[in-house]
Amino acid sequence: MTPTTTGRALEEEVGRLLDGKTKPVGSLGRIEQLALQIALALGTPAPRLQAPQMVVFAADHGIAAQGVSAYPSDVTWQMVENFLAGGAAVAVLARQHAIALTVVDCGVRHDFAARPGLVVAKVGAGSADSVLGPALTPAQCDQALANGARIAAALPGNALLLGEMGIANTSAAALLMARLTGLPLTDCAGRGTGLDDAGLARKLEVLQRALQRAPAAVAPLAALADLGGLEIATMVGAILEATRRRRVIVVDGFICGAALLVAAQLVPAVLDYCVFAHRSDEAGHARLLAHLHATPLLDLGLRLGEGSGAALAWPLVDSAVRLLNQMASFESAGVSDRDDGA
Amino acid sequence: MTPTTTGRALEEEVGRLLDGKTKPVGSLGRIEQLALQIALALGTPAPRLQAPQMVVFAADHGIAAQGVSAYPSDVTWQMVENFLAGGAAVAVLARQHAIALTVVDCGVRHDFAARPGLVVAKVGAGSADSVLGPALTPAQCDQALANGARIAAALPGNALLLGEMGIANTSAAALLMARLTGLPLTDCAGRGTGLDDAGLARKLEVLQRALQRAPAAVAPLAALADLGGLEIATMVGAILEATRRRRVIVVDGFICGAALLVAAQLVPAVLDYCVFAHRSDEAGHARLLAHLHATPLLDLGLRLGEGSGAALAWPLVDSAVRLLNQMASFESAGVSDRDDGA
Repeated sequence: MTPTTTGRALEEEVGRLLDGKTKPVGSLGRIEQLALQIALALGTPAPRLQAPQMVVFAADHGIAAQGVSAYPSDVTWQMVENFLAGGAAVAVLARQHAIALTVVDCGVRHDFAARPGLVVAKVGAGSADSVLGPALTPAQCDQALANGARIAAALPGNALLLGEMGIANTSAAALLMARLTGLPLTDCAGRGTGLDDAGLARKLEVLQRALQRAPAAVAPLAALADLGGLEIATMVGAILEATRRRRVIVVDGFICGAALLVAAQLVPAVLDYCVFAHRSDEAGHARLLAHLHATPLLDLGLRLGEGSGAALAWPLVDSAVRLLNQMASFESAGVSDRDDGA
Repeated sequence: MTPTTTGRALEEEVGRLLDGKTKPVGSLGRIEQLALQIALALGTPAPRLQAPQMVVFAADHGIAAQGVSAYPSDVTWQMVENFLAGGAAVAVLARQHAIALTVVDCGVRHDFAARPGLVVAKVGAGSADSVLGPALTPAQCDQALANGARIAAALPGNALLLGEMGIANTSAAALLMARLTGLPLTDCAGRGTGLDDAGLARKLEVLQRALQRAPAAVAPLAALADLGGLEIATMVGAILEATRRRRVIVVDGFICGAALLVAAQLVPAVLDYCVFAHRSDEAGHARLLAHLHATPLLDLGLRLGEGSGAALAWPLVDSAVRLLNQMASFESAGVSDRDDGA
């Protein structure tokens, strides 16, 4: 949080509350930091998480035509159907934790029948191939940002969990990361859904061509339009709106991280609201988290995306808040504090 | 699992099921390994976790009189009251996840009023000071083991989460670890609930005297009686019984790890049933996990004990089973598999 007087007073109050709980000071480790962060984000020493919303942003990518993914582009729309039918990992996990699941068609090459849980916010039939030219026009990028803001604004509750689906979107994320961090492409790109060595070599060669083609300017929105995908741009809009509304944002893996990188370069305060769910096995993700000075909650070798890591981490976020609100204090429970009174 | 023909067939079946789910092969990382482990432990490709039971084993320790803890021994009984009143961390977390909570008085220096959720299985008024002589008599140790077995047998469900409470029990755990692994005491002992440098130096000196006093024989039950506490011995009995009944055992931190070390030296198959919840900040825990070749689920800098880490990890265990049972397959969902058919 911006260290306002109010923010500092709240931070001290929450620190006192946590230190007074029936446990050695700091003994809940990362969970205590999380409780403090959420209290500051929601602006109260007694935060309540309400109606958590998982939003899976989906789109197709022109660069998929270059053979950068182990899966065909049709998997994007097929997986959207699978999310809506409840059979995908993120759907199973959202059900487990009573997280509402919304799938957003940001630009999938498929026409979906309308149904509950699906929001159609289609800006185009996928992005263009960024090897050949800009992935998005400036107007498309603006439209996607506006869609994301509108979607986030319409959701109830005070917690947004980010998910995504889009065959070849690790390519778009790696390009954005390389452009916006200045790290070499080989530090940013990985095997995605499971490329072998030859596939990875081809992916790197394709991404290098896209980077060389695109202007080297690093303004975040220009890079987003030039290299990003429609689900990433829509997610950036949702992140910015969720921040404006002081909602807790649970960030999934590599693609969500790339969207966050764009958003945080536009509005650094975004990071105050972000809980990083996990460190994925996608090669660039650990470096992206380090670049953002982010400490993730989980490290389970996940590389699925969809929001699956965010959903797996959700109970820890919920636990942090419950412990802050529900644990007894030494005083209230009649438990003796340390011998040295520390 | 013992690699019986049945076990291998089941392992292959579960592997096929997981690989057929709508996700890249292996992309749920550690969660897939967990699903396989639970399927093998429960002996079915469609495991169901039923009525999870958190058991907090509590006892006092004679060695506390040597000043090895930052807290007075009275905190043991006060925290038992706090568990039963619902104000302790493990009680908050058990409520969150609908885990039944049982507190076992294995040898607390206090007489508790009977109430739901409390099992009195008191073998003595705490252990004796292991600096001066054996912590437990062989008869006390046997009684505690039998109590643990009886308590585990009486619990419903097929999942046991281990917790503990006992001022000075990191000392007992460190002594058991040093004796049973052969590692130097400095690799095993840590700051417990928060000793400063001088406190840690004193603790190490006290523990060194206990180790020098005790016979160097390393038979697990002899070491348990000589150096362990009543909650650790009762927990060993519960672990062995849970293994006999093929229950999933979720292991909390350092003290539970020491109990597990004893149990696994007696019955190596115990490890097939154990899910290691977290790597704690207690100095010896990472080395104890490495000794057991155990990969924990969480690494959150916890050092509270109580079973808090096991409760925090429980949703991941539940998720693994739900993903195995509920995710759609490529075939059932009509999703295209990889381009290369891998």
